[in-house]
Amino acid sequence: MLLTKALRFGPAVRRLSSCSPSFPCVDAHAARESKLKQTTPRPAGSGPEPPYARPSPASYSVYHHKHPLPLTYSSQPLPSLDIAYETWGTLSPARDNAILLHTGLSASSHAAATPANPADGWWQKFIGPGKALDTDHFFIVCTNVIGGCYGSTGPSSIDPTTNKPYATTFPILSIFDMVRAQYSLLDHLAIDKLYASVGCSMGAMQSLATAWLNPERVGKVVSISGTARSSPSAVAMRYAQRSVLMADPNWNNGFYYDALPPHTGMKLARQIATITYRSGPEWDQRFGRQFRARPPSEDPSTTRTPALCPDFLIETYLDHQGEQFCLKYDANSLIYISKAMDLFDMTYPALQELKLTPSLSHPSSLSHPSSPPNLDFGLHKTSHSKSHPPPLAPPPYLPDLAKGLAPLAHIPTLVLGVQSDILFTVEQQREVADALRMAGNDRVSYYELGGVWGHDTFL
Amino acid sequence: MLLTKALRFGPAVRRLSSCSPSFPCVDAHAARESKLKQTTPRPAGSGPEPPYARPSPASYSVYHHKHPLPLTYSSQPLPSLDIAYETWGTLSPARDNAILLHTGLSASSHAAATPANPADGWWQKFIGPGKALDTDHFFIVCTNVIGGCYGSTGPSSIDPTTNKPYATTFPILSIFDMVRAQYSLLDHLAIDKLYASVGCSMGAMQSLATAWLNPERVGKVVSISGTARSSPSAVAMRYAQRSVLMADPNWNNGFYYDALPPHTGMKLARQIATITYRSGPEWDQRFGRQFRARPPSEDPSTTRTPALCPDFLIETYLDHQGEQFCLKYDANSLIYISKAMDLFDMTYPALQELKLTPSLSHPSSLSHPSSPPNLDFGLHKTSHSKSHPPPLAPPPYLPDLAKGLAPLAHIPTLVLGVQSDILFTVEQQREVADALRMAGNDRVSYYELGGVWGHDTFL
Repeated sequence: MLLTKALRFGPAVRRLSSCSPSFPCVDAHAARESKLKQTTPRPAGSGPEPPYARPSPASYSVYHHKHPLPLTYSSQPLPSLDIAYETWGTLSPARDNAILLHTGLSASSHAAATPANPADGWWQKFIGPGKALDTDHFFIVCTNVIGGCYGSTGPSSIDPTTNKPYATTFPILSIFDMVRAQYSLLDHLAIDKLYASVGCSMGAMQSLATAWLNPERVGKVVSISGTARSSPSAVAMRYAQRSVLMADPNWNNGFYYDALPPHTGMKLARQIATITYRSGPEWDQRFGRQFRARPPSEDPSTTRTPALCPDFLIETYLDHQGEQFCLKYDANSLIYISKAMDLFDMTYPALQELKLTPSLSHPSSLSHPSSPPNLDFGLHKTSHSKSHPPPLAPPPYLPDLAKGLAPLAHIPTLVLGVQSDILFTVEQQREVADALRMAGNDRVSYYELGGVWGHDTFL
Repeated sequence: MLLTKALRFGPAVRRLSSCSPSFPCVDAHAARESKLKQTTPRPAGSGPEPPYARPSPASYSVYHHKHPLPLTYSSQPLPSLDIAYETWGTLSPARDNAILLHTGLSASSHAAATPANPADGWWQKFIGPGKALDTDHFFIVCTNVIGGCYGSTGPSSIDPTTNKPYATTFPILSIFDMVRAQYSLLDHLAIDKLYASVGCSMGAMQSLATAWLNPERVGKVVSISGTARSSPSAVAMRYAQRSVLMADPNWNNGFYYDALPPHTGMKLARQIATITYRSGPEWDQRFGRQFRARPPSEDPSTTRTPALCPDFLIETYLDHQGEQFCLKYDANSLIYISKAMDLFDMTYPALQELKLTPSLSHPSSLSHPSSPPNLDFGLHKTSHSKSHPPPLAPPPYLPDLAKGLAPLAHIPTLVLGVQSDILFTVEQQREVADALRMAGNDRVSYYELGGVWGHDTFL
């Protein structure tokens, strides 16, 4: 039966393709490399000159902390450090209106436009007179995290003991280390107590950690699309990104600062990251199954000939996202910071292993509930949205998380999540709220947003 | 305040690391390459000898189809082709008890043990006397899809017109092309009508396509964890896999058959794929946040020192999955077949663009409902589980999908999905069932499975 159709083609079968196939999506890597070689001549040993370091340092402030910073995972401290930061609004005479804003993985301190840098920042919509972070009332401080590459000390910084970039001799960081560095800046600014600690994504982890390390120095906590315990799924997705990046030969075990950066690995890693930042429903609406535009040479009435390179708009979108990012951010920063996120776990046993303790003037005031409250006293009713049923069983580590979060028992906390987030799922948002309530915090507000933008909703 | 702790370290700060950092997870790629060079000497031009081709051809049957096979996306047919297949049970004298079983992306025809190959197959649990596919009653046929590398014609096969491997001169395939090749085997076996067409994952696409191309030759359809229209999210996840694979320099635009295969790209691609095949809840239960075992040299009472290479069991698991797969499957097969999955779309306009028509003895018997039945006659009530609310709005393309699936209106169909599947979501299972019912099929059975195993549940 099929033969009938097949035989129409007759016996004179030509070669399917008489010319070499071409792959512009693959050639793009080599083309970028070749362009990089031409435009950024870097004699060996000349030190780092990554494109992301180009913004003038004058566009942000830098606090140089001359003292060693103790680290969670290393017996030796960071000898000294720089913290890049920007501020908005005015610090009140009582110095009691400061909000510390924590960023996501790859953001700089540039959360909103400033006189020194009038470009829009990553949270432009939420910072300003009358906005969510109201600069008529509050003094907002945002830093580049340590480990980053936008002015704060990180793997691309010069190690003062060797006069070369740290590269992968940089120590493994924890979220708590990042927060300790931020506290050194607050000390420098003579801000004893924050009005609030606010953060999104990784910043939400820091927001919780800020309150945990010094509960008496934080007035309120806001955690947006974050978690108090990185899930194995999120670790898996970040691991996949680190793997493709570290497999790029240009990565060279992290020692690429006098050579070409691992731009292909960064592009591939960003493509994977973008998948985790967005959601299926958004892509259904935005791209659906639309193809890229046909080349003008193609007859639009013929059946489209697909390629092995991108055909669908969703593919060209991912390609573009990777392309845009691959030279904007330091590969080692991505690796170190994503690792710090993976390691973040505020359950009591995990904090114990790190030998961390909150700093309190009266440590006895901190009561760990040795037998946590019964799970079934209505928490789930309040922290679940109508459109999502409660999980069949709360996660087994919830009592441990409640015990770990006990230092936050007296701090009003807002937990905000997004239902279409696949990286920091609503289940994780709910467990933060539930654990805080189990720890005795009766001022936890919990909201879930709908919408289709996934993790990136906070932007 | 922090200074107090910091100053404990005193001014005598040593270098953080006095030796070069090592990355065993990255060195593994080079080690594998070096081993490959030693163990598989392949003089240039000697043709392909990939490790996946090692299973003896005697372990499966091969039907050589001498006639050209027309292709969806190419004006030129495949000149001839091989189809590797295995069978279980006995074909009845009336030849009316055959079940065609379709595989997922990377599976071979070895669905269950046979006398020629007693190793367990990929669906071992479901094939045999008294099992779901009961060999006491049915004659089961499973093929390696064309485009694959387990005995059927694919990119690693020799192009008869050049006497070299096709590599990326191989034509882009559609799911319909794969099914047409299977029909040529059924013709060869003199099986005019299938008792059923059964498939999982990509196989479910083929299962629907088998019935669509020849509605009169298929008695029943079973679609397990499949879709009738690949979603942009699934395209994105497969695109990420193809991207990392094609960026491996060993891929060499697909021409690697007389050199080393892109084993690193394959490993990275498989890591990403594994994330999409499994689910968060399974990993929560199976791995949680457990670390890999400490090396014996490490004092278990000290704080664990994390590394940039895998620390968590979920990471070593992904690493292992990639390692196991990277030499078992042909990279070009992965690229071509995953592309065919992306291109699969049974909505009416998409089928029209491909100029596909079902083969029917009385084409007029196929009525396309020009105005599809009202969406609101209770379909959603029947195809949604109690634990998942119906979507706020059915997808806008549902009427087009119903029109596209009209050829299946008279074929009893079972649609089975898994709630924890993130690649072929339950929403997609429901839309297949809903579209079939809208097309007038009143014999659609729909089931959703719970459990935590995600897309891989079908295995």
